[in-house]
Amino acid sequence: MITTLQDVLKEYKSDMERMERKIHESLGTDVPLIQQVSKYILGAGGKRFRPLLHLLSARLCGYREHNSEYLLGSVVEYIHTASLLHDDVVDEASIRRGKSSANSLWGNQASILVGDYLYSKALYHAVRLQIQRVMDVLSETTTTMSEGEVLQLEQIQNADISEADYFRLVECKTGVLISASCRLGAIISKAPLSQEDALTAYGKKLGLAFQITDDTLDYAADQKQLGKVLGKDLDEGKVTLPLIYLIQKAGDAERGNIRDILQADAVSEKDLTYTLGLMVKYGSVDEALSLAQTFSNDAKTALAVFPDSAPRQALMALADYVVQREM
Amino acid sequence: MITTLQDVLKEYKSDMERMERKIHESLGTDVPLIQQVSKYILGAGGKRFRPLLHLLSARLCGYREHNSEYLLGSVVEYIHTASLLHDDVVDEASIRRGKSSANSLWGNQASILVGDYLYSKALYHAVRLQIQRVMDVLSETTTTMSEGEVLQLEQIQNADISEADYFRLVECKTGVLISASCRLGAIISKAPLSQEDALTAYGKKLGLAFQITDDTLDYAADQKQLGKVLGKDLDEGKVTLPLIYLIQKAGDAERGNIRDILQADAVSEKDLTYTLGLMVKYGSVDEALSLAQTFSNDAKTALAVFPDSAPRQALMALADYVVQREM
Repeated sequence: MITTLQDVLKEYKSDMERMERKIHESLGTDVPLIQQVSKYILGAGGKRFRPLLHLLSARLCGYREHNSEYLLGSVVEYIHTASLLHDDVVDEASIRRGKSSANSLWGNQASILVGDYLYSKALYHAVRLQIQRVMDVLSETTTTMSEGEVLQLEQIQNADISEADYFRLVECKTGVLISASCRLGAIISKAPLSQEDALTAYGKKLGLAFQITDDTLDYAADQKQLGKVLGKDLDEGKVTLPLIYLIQKAGDAERGNIRDILQADAVSEKDLTYTLGLMVKYGSVDEALSLAQTFSNDAKTALAVFPDSAPRQALMALADYVVQREM
Repeated sequence: MITTLQDVLKEYKSDMERMERKIHESLGTDVPLIQQVSKYILGAGGKRFRPLLHLLSARLCGYREHNSEYLLGSVVEYIHTASLLHDDVVDEASIRRGKSSANSLWGNQASILVGDYLYSKALYHAVRLQIQRVMDVLSETTTTMSEGEVLQLEQIQNADISEADYFRLVECKTGVLISASCRLGAIISKAPLSQEDALTAYGKKLGLAFQITDDTLDYAADQKQLGKVLGKDLDEGKVTLPLIYLIQKAGDAERGNIRDILQADAVSEKDLTYTLGLMVKYGSVDEALSLAQTFSNDAKTALAVFPDSAPRQALMALADYVVQREM
């Protein structure tokens, strides 16, 4: 019985080792700077969450060819990695997963251009599968992701962002690629539409649960474990669900203070402590986590169309994992 | 008889008006910042050179459906525009075609992310044509372009760049998209491979002629006409063909001075005047222009497989135009 992330990684160890090789082999360039930066960012502690979801979805739909799932797993990882490279430039981030960010090591220029390379190479590989629906899904996915990134930029420091706007943003920015990773597993398996839709729905809910949990960690995580700075979103003016809930419940004076902190160029230690105190007072982190749990449950429910199997157990376990993780 | 750019634009006026509408209509987003930035950059004086080449190539191969050529014309223009947005961030450019660059108006963040959007939207539209070879060509093109951009970054301030490296860089950065614009015209027309190859070769040579001429304008153009600052490449440490020729011919002392100027953070008026003086002394600009002329002739020769027609005359005229233009 597969019930934890550790179980999943043990069960699919050799598959994910093959995936890992494919991710590194598919880079295919003789340009040294692309090799350096890509190798660094692809090796910098990524959990290969999207490739794993793709693999499990393909297995769940009975895909047995042992070929395209590694290629498309690499493709979704490249797209994810490209978006991280550009994100870190946009956010002026110096740390990523507890290590120096690529832009802090090689500069913004290299990060922008190597990001462009990874996007292009991802689509290059996908195109060569010669499956129209794979390209339909992927090209829609990257378009929506970039819309999400711009939406996020527009909403910086906006204390009045609605829950609906936040959910749209999360769905564009995170949800569609996670959802596509699952859906593409069904597509390469030539699964019936009911299964494809179920995996799309699973991925969409999982993506929401994942990102909301991630957003709570910014206000609650153990800094060393997470490998990122507490209050980073607040500092960057990103209004996420815990802060939206806090602003809804706070008194007028408190709300005014939060607005001031959001508008400030930098968040002081004192401001962060104050905000974290209010989060505890109003239970904002718990409220957000509770919604993440609901989405996690919805994700599992979406898998009801499939009979019990190892990959189904694994996908269930991942839905539990995303809301339980502390990093 | 069509012999000048003006003749071409007159002959294909209604086609290019329809192209223009398609370029603006295909943007398809409700995100205000994407609309603003895209509208600005797409409206900022672009000559629609790649869409025009695509249209003429399709006409030359007998394409008469009046549909896909406008769509793919928009696609190549989006890819070109996305690369300009990212280029201007990488180069920290404040001027583009005589106007403020998008990054100077909306910031680097918006330019990076809207560039990503335009790349994605280009592929999104292309995918929906459901022609495998179109996607093969486009995905190879964008991959090579991004390699070219990184190659250029690696070669910054390298006074020892070889002619061969320079040509590879130009082919990646400029040649492949111009070549693809032509080739895709043959592909949507279902033209025989001999015609497709001829247009690919035409585009490749034209791209070289175009970029070399562009690189000479940086040392020779009337500043107001060109809408860009003279000596910009030198200031950015980009070693282009005129400078390569100059370094080859210069005396040891002069070569040392050029190296120092290249390494400097900024190029002074005095350094620029000195460099321009050496260019005149050694005829470096003329030497580069002479090679551009050779490539232009090669481009025209590639069209020999086609009988005389209006689109063939137009493509011939464009091959003349790219080496004669002063802006």
